[in-house]
Amino acid sequence: MQVSVLFSGGKDSSLAAIMLEPFFDVELVTCTFSLLPVGDIARETAEKLGLASRVVCLDRSILEESYEMIVKDGFPRNAINHIHRSAVEYIASEKKAAFIADGVRRDDRVPVIEHSQARSIEDRYGVHYICPLKGFGRAAVNEMVKEHLVIEEGPSEGIIKSDYETELRELIRQRNGPDMVGELFPSHVQSRVIERKKT
Amino acid sequence: MQVSVLFSGGKDSSLAAIMLEPFFDVELVTCTFSLLPVGDIARETAEKLGLASRVVCLDRSILEESYEMIVKDGFPRNAINHIHRSAVEYIASEKKAAFIADGVRRDDRVPVIEHSQARSIEDRYGVHYICPLKGFGRAAVNEMVKEHLVIEEGPSEGIIKSDYETELRELIRQRNGPDMVGELFPSHVQSRVIERKKT
Repeated sequence: MQVSVLFSGGKDSSLAAIMLEPFFDVELVTCTFSLLPVGDIARETAEKLGLASRVVCLDRSILEESYEMIVKDGFPRNAINHIHRSAVEYIASEKKAAFIADGVRRDDRVPVIEHSQARSIEDRYGVHYICPLKGFGRAAVNEMVKEHLVIEEGPSEGIIKSDYETELRELIRQRNGPDMVGELFPSHVQSRVIERKKT
Repeated sequence: MQVSVLFSGGKDSSLAAIMLEPFFDVELVTCTFSLLPVGDIARETAEKLGLASRVVCLDRSILEESYEMIVKDGFPRNAINHIHRSAVEYIASEKKAAFIADGVRRDDRVPVIEHSQARSIEDRYGVHYICPLKGFGRAAVNEMVKEHLVIEEGPSEGIIKSDYETELRELIRQRNGPDMVGELFPSHVQSRVIERKKT
């Protein structure tokens, strides 16, 4: 059975992929708006994990819509969720894999796909949307990551990864300057996978 | 890392255990009130899965409390959830394993442990409560089960397994007769694992 795992190069989506690996043919899928070379970074990280990967270019209108949202809201939650949902819908519409997965954890509020949205996507596209880490809290995920991955952690602005935030921040930087990025995104710790441990 | 998986001999808890197997030392734990030989059935099924197992006798007062609940409510939800939560708390209090898991799926309403209850258990006992199938819908679980397990399915009254319902039904049968069992429990399909497929 084939699964497409939405992949940011961070610890959560990497661990989700590793958990599915014994049961599925895993393909990592990274979405980009071609604003930054996030696809190249994702490909490098996927190689370190030893997993197949590809990069998908999403329509720039999705990024524009999420730009409007974050500027209007003053916080990134709805904007990031909009990109995530659009990405899942796009992968679902391709119908390349019967299963689509992401690295959303139990305690995550962003990005997250609500129960009803998940069922709607499954019904409309005839796919299974699965979240291998949905039943795992942050501390449990960290314990498992420690066993399987070498990661680098730091504040969002210092870690280059392939998540939706990276390109949305860049668009805001280009249009409104770096101070606006700092105002709209609360400072939080990001992770990037450096290596997969031999187990 | 050690994980205790609450085990009923059904497809969900079996699949949850199989998903954790590549990453943890898995021990299946079946809880009983010693009203029926559910422990023996669980041990047999665990052997077929090739996983270590043990049986834990829970205090009969928990069954009595859930009996009171189902008779008062007229439906089994709160009663079953009470036993499930008590079982998780008991396994957590033993501190034999740092991780405690169950087979709860995305769409399950019974048994289920709410987010706040999960965090409370984790904080009080210093354990991780994990639900490997929490991010999987019914159809996705069925696809995975098909790959890994041979199961028998049928109405609750025809399938002997090692879940909480079995002994609660028996207590009601002893005290109130078989008709009352039919009134309190809506008829639903149960599964029992017959064999593990070689993959």
